[in-house]
Order: sequence, then structure tokens, then C-alpha cells
Amino acid sequence: MQSSSSTWFREDFTHTGSSIGFRVKRKLDEVQSEFQKIEIYETTDWGNLMVIDGATMVTTRDNFFYHEMMAHAPLFTHPDPKDVVIIGGGDCGTLREVLKHPGVHTAVQCDIDEQVTRMAEKYFPELCESNNDPRATVMFDDGIAFMASAAAESIDVIVVDSTDPVGPAEGLFNRAFYANCLKALRPDGLLVQQSESPLALMHLILDMRAAMRDAGFIDFAVLPFPQPCYPTGWWSCMIASKQSRDLDSFRKPDAAAKAFATKYYTADVHQGALATPPFVAEAMRD
Amino acid sequence: MQSSSSTWFREDFTHTGSSIGFRVKRKLDEVQSEFQKIEIYETTDWGNLMVIDGATMVTTRDNFFYHEMMAHAPLFTHPDPKDVVIIGGGDCGTLREVLKHPGVHTAVQCDIDEQVTRMAEKYFPELCESNNDPRATVMFDDGIAFMASAAAESIDVIVVDSTDPVGPAEGLFNRAFYANCLKALRPDGLLVQQSESPLALMHLILDMRAAMRDAGFIDFAVLPFPQPCYPTGWWSCMIASKQSRDLDSFRKPDAAAKAFATKYYTADVHQGALATPPFVAEAMRD
Repeated sequence: MQSSSSTWFREDFTHTGSSIGFRVKRKLDEVQSEFQKIEIYETTDWGNLMVIDGATMVTTRDNFFYHEMMAHAPLFTHPDPKDVVIIGGGDCGTLREVLKHPGVHTAVQCDIDEQVTRMAEKYFPELCESNNDPRATVMFDDGIAFMASAAAESIDVIVVDSTDPVGPAEGLFNRAFYANCLKALRPDGLLVQQSESPLALMHLILDMRAAMRDAGFIDFAVLPFPQPCYPTGWWSCMIASKQSRDLDSFRKPDAAAKAFATKYYTADVHQGALATPPFVAEAMRD
Repeated sequence: MQSSSSTWFREDFTHTGSSIGFRVKRKLDEVQSEFQKIEIYETTDWGNLMVIDGATMVTTRDNFFYHEMMAHAPLFTHPDPKDVVIIGGGDCGTLREVLKHPGVHTAVQCDIDEQVTRMAEKYFPELCESNNDPRATVMFDDGIAFMASAAAESIDVIVVDSTDPVGPAEGLFNRAFYANCLKALRPDGLLVQQSESPLALMHLILDMRAAMRDAGFIDFAVLPFPQPCYPTGWWSCMIASKQSRDLDSFRKPDAAAKAFATKYYTADVHQGALATPPFVAEAMRD
């Protein structure tokens, strides 16, 4: 929601009783797609800001935390990721990070809303700079249907980079969807999904884990990271494995020797994100 | 600043171009002290909220990140902290955490404004539960003068737990103050100070380090941590040493074996906070 003040975009989070806002210079664009309303603002200090149905999605300044953790944490946890699917992710930032891994052969991005990508190309061109990589497929379709029809044991890592579990993304957080993901993953495959704030939205994390477990996923890890534009400024991703394995171990030497640049992710940052704070561990205890 | 909406307390951060707010039920109290205006709100989801001169100081729900990191990170970095001084810290949360260390013999808290502590006793009683510990001295005086008159080499750890470098706290961020801290510290002594957001307020971190270095401090470490109620939701503390030493090493076995409970701090969380993200390392490169 935008406040009465014309110079601030504010989002009031009903579920957390908190609010985050950005000072804006002007609205740059607005489109009502088939699925949702997409707005772009120019801010005073955060670059451009994409808002979908009133919810902050991305700012130029701080999206790197999220995109780097959503891509590099699972890809360095998987032993040898070759085929990656991104469900959602229409701003293309996760795709760009995934394609930094030279071992990746194919990366398919399937977002339901083409308009998100068109807006990203225009207002966040840096996030889209790998869209023409020959390994990339940028498609616009229903991610639920895509996973339902994916070939069995054809994917190494599935990244669910979606909006919150309301509206178009609701079907990306339930047992049926996760069961299709499980089937499509190779035996050592991993699913990663943005998993909300460990401080204020733990019930969503627990619901996600329960649904993933119900679908047959075995082990789980929640990695927190800063994300200033999302509720509480502290966000997380959940990694789930098809087979039993220790998700606290990852290819740390490879991560430490990575040949590409990042702003937030490093092997040590990854290790640090695995240090579950006691209040989170307590809430997640089975 | 409070918005026109009566149900949200909002703080608009001019320096960062961002805003954070909390949904409030009602204002519980308000006092204009000799130094500042202190307000207490009851929120819907964050417990009580203390606001000083319009700036969010503490909420019941999320203060543990800050207080635990400000106390345990430096105390487990120091080889054997016996005498601790807290400058500011009137809500008494840092004092409570410091006194969890059985090796601490004395902990002096010197805040300029008695009204902050009186409000904390009433609305954040859990933060004040160690105020009567026989090792504690809770005094109300000018922290600048206190440090100027402190005996040389009498303190192991100085914790500067103050508001931002404007208003009453401005004098806690300059060379003269740091020089007095340096003199008062024993040779293996450490200074720790809240050091703002590494994403949005890096210039303040660099200014602090420059002033500390100018005063004679040798080595520095910046440890980030989540703090939802402060700008960007991602905050930090800076540890500075009187002697040359590796601040990336700390008493990790002692931290791992600590006999007291914490909600956020652990040895692994401490280690994780030492994993400086590349964009922070780049900004801090000399």
C-alpha cells in the first residue's frame, strides 16, 4: 500500500505488524498484466523498485543478497549441478547467478508472467544480462504445470523463486507441487525455495517443511540472509534434498575458489548461514 | 516521525531513503527528559516499542540480536574480560548479557539519561533483571566525562551502546572520546561500538574506524547481524583493539561451551559474522 505521503512507497505487512518503505522520486511505469499489477518506481537511494500487487519484489540496490543466496547456496550444495530449473524468477536475477556456474549445462526459467521479465529488461537490465546465454531458456508458462509435466529424474536443482504464498504463487507451496518437483529431480537433486522471515514468519517455514516432507523430501536446511526490502529485513531460503544427506556440508573448496564475482555470497558466508540461531533451531525442532 | 495513519508508528530514515514502521495499539507512556523525548508504544506484534526523539530504540521482540552481539562478540573475543564498562545502554539489555559471563567481576553502565532506564524498568523489565546483580553499577552521568576521568588501564572491554551520532551521542563517535577509551583500556582491551548498517551507512563505519585509528586503536572487525527495527534491518558492531591482534579469532571453545542461554548468539553465529561479504570488504579496504 502506498501511504498518503506522495514521496514514500510503503508496504504494510499485515502478518508481521511491520512496515517497510522507500523514498521515491516518481513512478516510472505501471502495467496490469493478465496476472497481477506491476509498478516500477525510481527511488532516491535504492535505484529502481519493482512492486507487484503492492508488494516490494526487487530494488536495484539490495537484490543481490537474495539472488546470490538462492542460486549459489544450493548450487554449491549439490555435488555437480548441470540442469537447473527456476520456477518464477521473472526478474531474471536468479538466472544470471545460476549461469555464473560453468558446470551448468541448461537453466530453464519458467515464470507465469511475461510482463515481469519485460519490466525487468527495461528497468533492471543488469539482472537480465545473461538471458541470451545459449544455456538459458526463458519461458513464460505456469510453473505448476511445467513441473507436473517435467520428465522424471531430469533436473539437478529446482529453484522456486516466487512471490509469497498468496495469489498466483499459492500453488507453489503445497504437497502436490512438491511431489512433482521430487519426481523431476535426479536422485541427488535439491529443491530450494525462498522461505520468508525466520523471525516473523516461522509458521510459513514450518508449513513449507511439512508439505515438502509430506511429498517425500528427506532433509532440510534453512539459510538466513539479510534482505532489507522484505519484512523484518531478514529472509531465508530452504534447501530440501531428495535423498538423505547432510545439507550442512557443501562444496566449500569450490565455493572458495569460484571464478566469478559476488557481492554477498562467499564460502564463509554460506558456512555462516548454516549457523542456525538457537531461537530458530528451537522453533524448527521436530 | 509518526505517519498520518494513527495505527502505525513509522520512522523515515533520511540518510538511507528507507522507512520502517510497526503497527501500534496505543501509546503507553511519554516523557520529555532533560536530554530527549522518550515514548513507549504497545505494538500488535513486537511487544513494546521505545522511541527516543522519533527514533526506534528497542522492541521487546527483536532486541536480542543487538544486545547479544554487542555483549558476547567482544567478551568472547577478549581473552579474559573482568571489568566491563557500558557507555549508554540505558535500557540495560547489554548489561544483562554482559553479566551472563561468570568471569566478569564488575560491569558499570553509564547512561546520561536516567529516564531511559526508568522507562525500561517499567516497560522492558526483562532487560533490567540483572540490574541488582552485585557486580553491576547502574549510574547516570555523561559517558564522555566518565571516560575522560577513568583510571588508566583499568577496563577490559568498553561497550559503546549509544544512539546514532547526532544529538546527545555525537561526542561518542570522535577521536577525543576514543583516545580516552584507549587510555582506560588494559593492554589487551577491546572497544566495541554499534556501527550502523553496512549496506546503507558504510560512510559512518569508515568515519568511526578512521577516528578510532586516529586515536591509536590498531585492529578492527565489523560484525554484521540482523536487527529488524533499525534501518535496512541489518546492523553491525565494530570491535577495535588496543594492541595488534587478530580479531577474527575468539574464544570459540568457550563460546561453544557457554553455560548461559542466548536466542541468537552462538560460537558458530559469531564465526559467521566474521565472514565479511565482498561488498563490505571492498568498501573497507584501506
